[in-house]
Amino acid sequence: MEKGSGSPAAGGSCPQKNAEILSSQYGINLFLAGLLLTFAWAVHAVGISKSHLLSYLITLMFIQLLWMLWYLCRSCTQRRLIRDKDTHAGARWLKCGITLFAVITLILDSFKVGYYIDFSNCLSPTEGIFPVTHAAHTILQVYFLWCHAKDIIQSFKTLERFGVIHSVFTNLLLWTNGVLTESKHQLNEHKERLITLGFGNITIVLDDHAPQCNCTTTTLCSIFSQGIYYLYPFNIEYHILASTMLYVLWKNIGRKVEHHQQHKTPFKFHGITVGMIFGLTVLTSTIAVVVVYLIQIGRSKVKSELALTMFYLHAIFVLALMCTAGVVALLIYRLEDRSLDNSKNPARKLDAELLVGTAAGSWLLSWGSILAIICAQAHPKYTWYNLPYSVLVIIEKYIQNLFIIESIHREQEKANDDIKTLRIVTISRGSTLSLTPSYKEIYNGRATCDIGELPCLVSSSICARESDGGGSANEETNQGNSPVMRSASEFSFHSRSSVADNKRRILKNIAAFLFLCNLSLWIPPAFGCRPEYDNGLEEIVFGFEPWIIVVNLAMPFSIFYRMHSAASLFEVNCKT
Amino acid sequence: MEKGSGSPAAGGSCPQKNAEILSSQYGINLFLAGLLLTFAWAVHAVGISKSHLLSYLITLMFIQLLWMLWYLCRSCTQRRLIRDKDTHAGARWLKCGITLFAVITLILDSFKVGYYIDFSNCLSPTEGIFPVTHAAHTILQVYFLWCHAKDIIQSFKTLERFGVIHSVFTNLLLWTNGVLTESKHQLNEHKERLITLGFGNITIVLDDHAPQCNCTTTTLCSIFSQGIYYLYPFNIEYHILASTMLYVLWKNIGRKVEHHQQHKTPFKFHGITVGMIFGLTVLTSTIAVVVVYLIQIGRSKVKSELALTMFYLHAIFVLALMCTAGVVALLIYRLEDRSLDNSKNPARKLDAELLVGTAAGSWLLSWGSILAIICAQAHPKYTWYNLPYSVLVIIEKYIQNLFIIESIHREQEKANDDIKTLRIVTISRGSTLSLTPSYKEIYNGRATCDIGELPCLVSSSICARESDGGGSANEETNQGNSPVMRSASEFSFHSRSSVADNKRRILKNIAAFLFLCNLSLWIPPAFGCRPEYDNGLEEIVFGFEPWIIVVNLAMPFSIFYRMHSAASLFEVNCKT
Repeated sequence: MEKGSGSPAAGGSCPQKNAEILSSQYGINLFLAGLLLTFAWAVHAVGISKSHLLSYLITLMFIQLLWMLWYLCRSCTQRRLIRDKDTHAGARWLKCGITLFAVITLILDSFKVGYYIDFSNCLSPTEGIFPVTHAAHTILQVYFLWCHAKDIIQSFKTLERFGVIHSVFTNLLLWTNGVLTESKHQLNEHKERLITLGFGNITIVLDDHAPQCNCTTTTLCSIFSQGIYYLYPFNIEYHILASTMLYVLWKNIGRKVEHHQQHKTPFKFHGITVGMIFGLTVLTSTIAVVVVYLIQIGRSKVKSELALTMFYLHAIFVLALMCTAGVVALLIYRLEDRSLDNSKNPARKLDAELLVGTAAGSWLLSWGSILAIICAQAHPKYTWYNLPYSVLVIIEKYIQNLFIIESIHREQEKANDDIKTLRIVTISRGSTLSLTPSYKEIYNGRATCDIGELPCLVSSSICARESDGGGSANEETNQGNSPVMRSASEFSFHSRSSVADNKRRILKNIAAFLFLCNLSLWIPPAFGCRPEYDNGLEEIVFGFEPWIIVVNLAMPFSIFYRMHSAASLFEVNCKT
Repeated sequence: MEKGSGSPAAGGSCPQKNAEILSSQYGINLFLAGLLLTFAWAVHAVGISKSHLLSYLITLMFIQLLWMLWYLCRSCTQRRLIRDKDTHAGARWLKCGITLFAVITLILDSFKVGYYIDFSNCLSPTEGIFPVTHAAHTILQVYFLWCHAKDIIQSFKTLERFGVIHSVFTNLLLWTNGVLTESKHQLNEHKERLITLGFGNITIVLDDHAPQCNCTTTTLCSIFSQGIYYLYPFNIEYHILASTMLYVLWKNIGRKVEHHQQHKTPFKFHGITVGMIFGLTVLTSTIAVVVVYLIQIGRSKVKSELALTMFYLHAIFVLALMCTAGVVALLIYRLEDRSLDNSKNPARKLDAELLVGTAAGSWLLSWGSILAIICAQAHPKYTWYNLPYSVLVIIEKYIQNLFIIESIHREQEKANDDIKTLRIVTISRGSTLSLTPSYKEIYNGRATCDIGELPCLVSSSICARESDGGGSANEETNQGNSPVMRSASEFSFHSRSSVADNKRRILKNIAAFLFLCNLSLWIPPAFGCRPEYDNGLEEIVFGFEPWIIVVNLAMPFSIFYRMHSAASLFEVNCKT
């Protein structure tokens, strides 16, 4: 079983590569089978009901539970087996985030149990077993991720790989299931609005709307069924987050890591007040807009159009601000010339790929809107706002991705340490005049230190110092003896480092602002503001059914993008 | 522009990473816009016609043409700029393959021009301009790939990146367009069969079937319109191949390569007779089955069922053979203990990802069939053959992927060279008796030499030899002087190396057999044998429309899988 662990570092061993392909193919098949069951349920396939799908999911969760228990026991008894940790994986704020979502998911599960008890006459038992299993699964999985998200598994690889990939795809299937339920709910609401607005000509069939029997306790029923749909967005985020964390764990299996110290960079509110104020303003206004939108939309034609106009104008304003902030941040990066860290790092690679990949979801929707506006025969006034909105959505994600990916690839700032080193070295040389020009040379050229060059400078200073002869012996005494020289050099430092500090502060503020903006923009689609439905233009051009399919496929990625970019921006804020 | 090239090798420079993200996001947006245009055409969106889509494609091809001309001129005048080559990219047989497909694509283009001339009264001019542009595009692109597929571009990176990614996604869009046209054609044929069989209850509308006006020269018209659909599969393969080659070129931009000699391993027919005979038998029988299937299907209910039964039985037999061959090959690999080469290699990484990714397409279809068989209420006898067929499709691809990915990751065989070295060294020791046990130790343990261990053995032999004193001086003389010892050691070598040779011959035969089988299995779906349509069971369970959508989305990947795995197996055959 541990055949592969003794192989040389350069060439991987056969069993390990084999286990990788074996397990990934197993996972894909698991997922595809589940996907088809979900699809069959969605299209009301003959002979396939929701309980079939739920049974499949329950089985998968049960297997994962067993595997996690086995892993936890094994790692308790044999602590020596897992020594390496990936410092980049499973950051603390990620764990906190997943715990928050998990808690809300548990509330959702209890609502579902309550709903099942109320309608137990006409629901299949699987609908009761599912939330219970899911709650157990959630609790154990969060515990597992807290303890083991950073693990780099080196032993008994095959069984580990299968277990982890099983967990990844189980969570992805649960995500798919959540997304589908949510989409059906949104579509039903949209159809109800269409009925209210008098579009009876579209063949409207409400899908899985309500059970066929009466509720036993009427007041609780409506709370449960309403509450469930407000909690779903968090459940969806929980599963996709768990899935990505587990995927990083899977990619890390059998990896060789170089141990380089990672700076712990806790989040600080200090110095990002401006960004926070702007961001919170956006957040508040977005929540207000969403509430007004959800109340107004579908009431009457005029009210719907007003709600849409308000939504578009607000979004255009926010997106334009975000674009500006992103461009400013990129310009600041262009002024500096810091090299990028391209070392192997599965967590970061996944982050970058997910950003671009999931942005594609909303780009698809935006291109659909643009095409619809260009090709439509009639243009009600409010539809014109859709054009700048769609264009800005594309540009904003384009710029933001550039900013985030460059930020997470920049090498950690070592300027402060290096300045200290330089100061000690230069002060010890004991000659102010000869040193001042070299200072200027360093700090005029670039605001923060180029890591590639600094060691050279330091070493050359050391060489110079050593050639001075006795200078090396009276280091401590010199430091105390020449206060004039010291204050002069410190002044020079402070003026230079204050420029760097200013840039850093601007970047931190931008990251904080963008973080809050992304959180804000997550809210409207997650809680049912879907101008892509209500706008009506795309539905006329592409047809009702095709456009609904496109929206339902692309929207989950678009929603996930916002949460994921918010998480990445939080990291950027901490790192800057 | 060349800012990034001076940076240290370990950390990448900002402009390069930036250019990568900038260009990939540009490419994705280009693709998404095209995809939506294609989608709009497919769903008959209001105000969007085929000529809009064709205009978009013509524009993209034209931009690519200009870029390729610029690149060719630039690389002619400034030869010094491109010095590095990726020896793994753009293999000769890949270039030959793409040329073959390109020639057939040119014939297709000429057919399309002929078709346009015949129906010029009622077709838009874009339908005439498109094939002409496409022909020019094809010729220049093939020339470009022949000359520059191995390039590792180090200078003026931003413009290169944009040009290459533009080319990648232009080809992908042309592939999508080809796939859609082909799917529409297949669907029309299927609907015609359904009409013949009397299933009039399904709302059957033939899609883009024939132009609205009469043909000017009737005989040519039918040749053109028939011929076009037989040539489409090659056109589709051409674009996806070109796309993958260009993608590897894109991934290689700015890469640092270690120059290690690659063995040129030309394809030889010698020693793979058994595999070839079996493979050619499968190929012939498959062609026969396809011809009979296409003639019989849709004639009457009985004939259709017979054709389906024949198809399934043949496919089950072939797939079972392929599974067996794959398992044997994997067992042989397990007997050896050779380490894997995990060095950076974009071409190989893409190969492996494409194999697993595109296999998912046919796995999805297979899971659909399995689900349909389990859930269907009525089971005509012939549908039961579908179950082992679908299961075997999944297992066969699972095993074959394992085999191919392990094969392309194995380190090139150096056994022959090492044996020669060993022979010289050991012969020079001048003592037969003391050496024989060490030989046995080496060659009993493992059939081919473990690369990790050999240098050790060789060096220890050298040490031993040097401690012998004068032995090192009379190396040449010893070789000539002790014929008895030499023949003994040679005998020992030959018996050992013949085991290794036998294993190699079996592996080569298996690779050749699987190569021909994959080529064979490419034919039925590419030329319109689609039991997934004709079987009828899935359509009943999932519904006509949903199942057609699934098949049309998954089938192109399934078809591409066969051609791609055939190409990979050809490489495996050459390397083994």
